[in-house]
Order: sequence, then structure tokens, then C-alpha cells
Amino acid sequence: MASFVPSGELVERVCAGEINAIARLLTRAEQGSEECRPALDEIYRRAGRAHVVGITGVPGSGKSTLVAALAKTIRQSGRRVAIIAIDPSSPFTGGSILGDRIRMNDLTGDPGVFVRSMATRGALGGLARGTLEAVDILDAAGFEVVIIETVGIGQGEVDIVRASHTTVVVSAPGLGDDIQAIKAGVLEIADIHVVSKCDRPDANKTIIDLKAMLGIGLALSHNQGWAVPVLATSAPRGEGVAELLDAMLRHRAALEANGGIGARRRLIAERRVLKAAEALIADRFERHRGGRVADLLGGVTGRRMSPHAAAVELLNEIRMED
Amino acid sequence: MASFVPSGELVERVCAGEINAIARLLTRAEQGSEECRPALDEIYRRAGRAHVVGITGVPGSGKSTLVAALAKTIRQSGRRVAIIAIDPSSPFTGGSILGDRIRMNDLTGDPGVFVRSMATRGALGGLARGTLEAVDILDAAGFEVVIIETVGIGQGEVDIVRASHTTVVVSAPGLGDDIQAIKAGVLEIADIHVVSKCDRPDANKTIIDLKAMLGIGLALSHNQGWAVPVLATSAPRGEGVAELLDAMLRHRAALEANGGIGARRRLIAERRVLKAAEALIADRFERHRGGRVADLLGGVTGRRMSPHAAAVELLNEIRMED
Repeated sequence: MASFVPSGELVERVCAGEINAIARLLTRAEQGSEECRPALDEIYRRAGRAHVVGITGVPGSGKSTLVAALAKTIRQSGRRVAIIAIDPSSPFTGGSILGDRIRMNDLTGDPGVFVRSMATRGALGGLARGTLEAVDILDAAGFEVVIIETVGIGQGEVDIVRASHTTVVVSAPGLGDDIQAIKAGVLEIADIHVVSKCDRPDANKTIIDLKAMLGIGLALSHNQGWAVPVLATSAPRGEGVAELLDAMLRHRAALEANGGIGARRRLIAERRVLKAAEALIADRFERHRGGRVADLLGGVTGRRMSPHAAAVELLNEIRMED
Repeated sequence: MASFVPSGELVERVCAGEINAIARLLTRAEQGSEECRPALDEIYRRAGRAHVVGITGVPGSGKSTLVAALAKTIRQSGRRVAIIAIDPSSPFTGGSILGDRIRMNDLTGDPGVFVRSMATRGALGGLARGTLEAVDILDAAGFEVVIIETVGIGQGEVDIVRASHTTVVVSAPGLGDDIQAIKAGVLEIADIHVVSKCDRPDANKTIIDLKAMLGIGLALSHNQGWAVPVLATSAPRGEGVAELLDAMLRHRAALEANGGIGARRRLIAERRVLKAAEALIADRFERHRGGRVADLLGGVTGRRMSPHAAAVELLNEIRMED
């Protein structure tokens, strides 16, 4: 059925868990279409029950395989699970780089699992446009666990921690020292560490190194009242995956028990309001590109006016206008 | 001398090329102190002559060694060169991860070279706070070439292309396939490709692979009128470095000849105005954190109001206030 469905009607169907409606609203959210804004606002108000789990790690760490195994284990525990897989994509063409690979074959056909790839399209930070709204949609649709899986090294992971209740960082044995050094910067965002490919002979060294690094940084950890576990997994063999699910659930329970969940929710809310404000500014910038924005950009390009001064004027212009 | 120097006085001393003044204004820009804003605005208006070169590549590609060799070659050509080395840093502690390593020992003592490390501190994208202002300062101080060196894989590199006239992407033989796949996303941002460590036996394969990938993407390239070269270097041996400088200069000349430089400048200006607007919003958010912002965040956390609706109100509040 290709006929147009008003977004308002989609909300009810999403909340009833209709897969077609979910897919359709996800597409609209990803496109950033203004017309679905009231629907997304309503979805946001109805969401808030799901356990949002961010899973990140360096390329080559076997994240996707682990996520597939984890989804299977979550299903076996009777929970519904949705996965948002963020794909790096070309900033110029918008084409997805990893999106075409087949993911999680043996989960297809199960209505309790929903998988969606989203391309970053050059968005700054690790998340694609519409990712946060996608979490809301899947949350409102009744998925008890929503997993955001990102590819990346570096600062992008910060975005994931600001969107998740529980953050899992996946490491793998045998990756280069340079990469591990970079990764040191994201070690402390983890609520749970996983060393994947633990069937490899050098896995033990990685686990020991990781525990040593964590020992150094522990006093600085933002996880008061939660001892960050280091788990070993071998996804193809299914080893350690049940333990990972258990750790996720224990982390969530600990957040509820020590009040940490409130702090996480405030952090997420704060980040999202700022992101939404940035999106509003960018939209208005585009809308006035032919007019006042062109004047300001001319001034900046010609060095008559600094970018900061132009930004102040831009925000003032917006004031007078709507 | 630890006494306070007014930022206005610093401007004149920066433009006269005084190293102490440059270092001091860079520190103020990095701290984001509001009091130096007029000085930075003035610096921006006086800048605009330097050739800004972004150099990026995966960890382990030997970027830093290459940049040191390149700086030496630039000096030998009689030009002054400044290097801004972006270090990944902890988003929570702000500590620099790579900043303590000694860089470019044999360049110290030469007043025609200036090196500054800047930590990203969890900033989104690949650039640290104050990086763009640092480019202005070094440009206004008379450095003919300003190099921004970033560590990163993924979307961060997009930031560098939006800040540079010429973007150099460094690859190395023997890095993992996963990393190369990620890198595919940034291949097309390059104006110049470098394959480092060309003394290694597998370097030739990397060069051939790269040329093949470029061949596929060539029609999509944003470099009209410029055939992107693939250069082989061995920085410790000094091989290929003069060719890299030559390619940088030819690229700049091509941009001047085909009018591309104007498009680059507009792209940079646009990005900077948007970034400055985002910084203004974030500052105001912080300033009102105890008041209206707290109400809005309460509404979002409590799911009574969507982040988008709160952002609209936030922008409206700012309107009425100043």
C-alpha cells in the first residue's frame, strides 16, 4: 500500500506495534520532514520505557556479530529488541558504506526483532540524523530493549553515551597499538566492557591490559556505585553473550537503585534539546540562504565580519522574523 | 612575565609575529574566554592570506612523522609554517591522550615553525574548541602555511575539509580491511592522497588499491579541474616529501586559477558561522541552566514536552532576553 498515511494516524499504529507503520515513520524521521514533527513530538511523550543500550567499538572488533548474538539471547529471554545500526557514509554522496552487507540473517522473520540501518551522511558526532527520534519510535512501539550500534573511533562515541542508559564498549585482541591509544579516550564511557573474539590466544592479554587501564582511570569514573565489568565473548560460539545480557540488566537495575537513571535521563534530555536547537538554526540558515544569510556569508568570506559576529546577527534576524 | 596583557594589545603583537603573544592568544581562544572575543574578531578580519592545509588519516598511518618532514621541507622553501596538532582527549577528564609525546624535535628553536597541540575534549567532529580561531591567529601572525593535523577515522575528517583549502589524506600499507572500509568514507575528501611508509613491500598494493577506489569515485569528486594525485612517501628517508609540498602548492594554484578558492572560502565561512551560532546557543544554555533551562529540561525528562518543542521555546526565550 503506497497511499499516503497521515503522521497522526501513524502514531497510533506505531504504538500498537505495527511493523509497516514503524518503518514508515522511521523513514520520515530520517528524512527530517517537518510535516511529521507533531507525530514525533507525540511519540516522544509516549516513549520512555525502553532500555536504551549503546554498543560501540573500533572497526574490526566484531561488534555486528556480537550484536546479532546478543539480540538472539534477548529474544530467548522473552524481550522484544530493536537494533539501530549506524553506518558510516559518504559525506558527499550520502551513500552507505557498510549498509549493504547482510546483517543478522537468522533473526529475520521474528516480529520481536526489528533492525534498521541508518547512514550518518556526514553528520557530526557518531549518530545519524533521526537516530534519537528512531529510539523514541521503537521505544513507543514497545521494544523493551533498543540497541544503538555505532562504528567509530574517537569522539563520536560521546554521542552514544548521551543517548543511552547503558553503554557497552567492545574491544578485540590484536588491534594495533595506535588504535588502542585512541580508544583509551573512549574507555571511560563504558558501563560494560566486552573483549570479543575471546577464542583467540591473545585475548587474555587484551583483557589484562584493559583491566589495568581501567584500574588507573577508576577514580575518575562517572559510574558511582557500579563496578564496570570486563566480559569476554566469542559471538560465533555464543560464549559470554548471556553474561553480557545479564550485565546490561544489572546495570539498569543499579541505575534504578542508586538514582543514577535520573541523572542519565537529564543528560540525555539536555543533549537532545541542544541538538534540536542546532537543527533549528541549521534549518533556518538553509531557508534564508538566498537572502540575509547570503549577505552575512559575503561579509565573512570577505573578512569584513567575523563568523562570531555573523552568528550573533543570524540569531537576531531569526528573532525578528518568526 | 605573568602580568595581564589586554587582548587588544595582543592583536598588534600577534600581527607583528611575536611568539609569546601568539601563544597567549591561542590559550585564550582555546579557553573560549568571552573577554578575548573582540580581539579574535579583529584577528579574523586581518587574516586570510595563509594556505590552510588539513592532514588526516587513520591512526598508525605515520601522519605525525610525515607532518614533521613536511614542515622541514616547507622551511627549506623559505616559507613559515604553523602546525596545529589535534589530539584526541578524554571527554570526561579533558586530559590529552597523545599530547605528551614529543613531536618534531629537530624543528624546535626555529622561529619560522610554530607547533601547537590542541585537545578535543569531547568536542563533536574532529576539531578541538578554538581550532578555527587558532588558524586565524597563526594566519594573521604571518605563517604562510597553516597545517591542521587530525587523528581520526570517520566523520571527524569532514570538519577538516570545511576548514582547509587543501586536504591531504594519509594511508599506510598493511592496515586492516575494516579500517580501510571506514576510510572509504573519507577518501573523497582528499585533494591529495599520500601513501606513507612506501619503503614497505606492501606499499605498492596500497597505492594500486587506492587508485582503483579513486577511479570508481572519480565522477563523484568535488574536485572539478583537479586530478587528485596519489603520492608515495617515506618520511624517515625524506622520500616524496618535496613532491607533497609541490602538490599542495599546485593545488592551491589550481584553486586560484579555476575559481575554486572562492567556493572553498564560502564553504569555510558557512561552516564557521553555523559553528559559532551553535556555540552561542550552548553558552546561553549554560547561563540559564539554573532558571528557565531547568524548567524545560524537567519537561523533557518527564516526557511532557519533546526536545524539539523545548528547543523552540529555548530559542524564543533567548529572543526576549537580550
